[in-house]
Amino acid sequence: MSRGRFVVLEGIEGAGKSTHAAFLAGWLEQRGIAVVAAREPGGTALGERLREILLDPELTGMAPLAELLLMFAARSASLKEVILPALDEGSWVICDRFVDSSYAYQSYGRGVSLEYVEALEKQVLDGLRPDLTILLDTPVRLGLSRKADPQGRDRFERESREFFERVRAGYLERAALGGDGYRIVDGSKSLEEVQTDLTDAIRRLAGL
Amino acid sequence: MSRGRFVVLEGIEGAGKSTHAAFLAGWLEQRGIAVVAAREPGGTALGERLREILLDPELTGMAPLAELLLMFAARSASLKEVILPALDEGSWVICDRFVDSSYAYQSYGRGVSLEYVEALEKQVLDGLRPDLTILLDTPVRLGLSRKADPQGRDRFERESREFFERVRAGYLERAALGGDGYRIVDGSKSLEEVQTDLTDAIRRLAGL
Repeated sequence: MSRGRFVVLEGIEGAGKSTHAAFLAGWLEQRGIAVVAAREPGGTALGERLREILLDPELTGMAPLAELLLMFAARSASLKEVILPALDEGSWVICDRFVDSSYAYQSYGRGVSLEYVEALEKQVLDGLRPDLTILLDTPVRLGLSRKADPQGRDRFERESREFFERVRAGYLERAALGGDGYRIVDGSKSLEEVQTDLTDAIRRLAGL
Repeated sequence: MSRGRFVVLEGIEGAGKSTHAAFLAGWLEQRGIAVVAAREPGGTALGERLREILLDPELTGMAPLAELLLMFAARSASLKEVILPALDEGSWVICDRFVDSSYAYQSYGRGVSLEYVEALEKQVLDGLRPDLTILLDTPVRLGLSRKADPQGRDRFERESREFFERVRAGYLERAALGGDGYRIVDGSKSLEEVQTDLTDAIRRLAGL
């Protein structure tokens, strides 16, 4: 059995990653392709415990380096328990966020040195790269407007517009540097238009 | 005001680290030296949340690399919030475990590459080294016998004797390589004898 494909959805808060990840999984399954969903941080017993911590708005002042290490700890568990076993058994993996989130949020957003992220990527990913990373590029104002209730916002959603502007710029820079491995989809388009762009992006990878 | 001193107590489960850390803090305070206690993992809001996860016996099968990253995340918070501010204001810090625990447990004990630990040490500690690391060296059988109730054992305390033999050997190797920065104290001696050895070890550092 051939190895599965590894597709990552990236983007800022409110870009529609989880909605579109579910859509893509359904679209592939309708075409007879087995899909495993993953999300970061989370998707494992350890990862979900770390997600609670990472999103907890009570934990103000978390050191950016600590945040980065927690993201990679969750990623390490997700790789070992979910992503690699699924790819090995021939399933596709659709992952809601992956290593580019660490570059965009902890480095471009919070100022941790890019070299630190690169070193952790090397340690934890051990050479694994997504077959395709789709950046759902969304204007910050639009993304945040989709997270309406200020009371219910998590630790990231409470960040400033300037923070998310840096994160968005970081994503765009990663996509520009990443060449073939990236597709940018305009997340401000209508749901149907975005879905068409997404299926166009993965059609070739799926041999469809 | 001169910078404080940074003293670390290391050793396997049941070596007496927390008892002796409290003793040393009291001994120094009686001599007019301000002391801040720290422990790993823990001592900060983030660190205590991570401690719960790291010690939780329900989380079987935690990937060694994830465990290592969590330890360094907790350490990063402890450094920023507790250790560095205390040293800067001239207090001593007595820390129950520090970076040598990562070498001993995650590398010697669990087999994570030493280079990974070194890379994280460089990132997170940024050149900081304890003024003195005291290894409470204790035979494994004795240490574990002090953690009597098997039901109440945490995720580490449930490890095999072979695991703790590797951890102990790792500590001894670190101490042998570390020269002046280390003192080995025989943790199998009586409480009074250990206390005498400990005060001997820090007397010179304290200028007493």
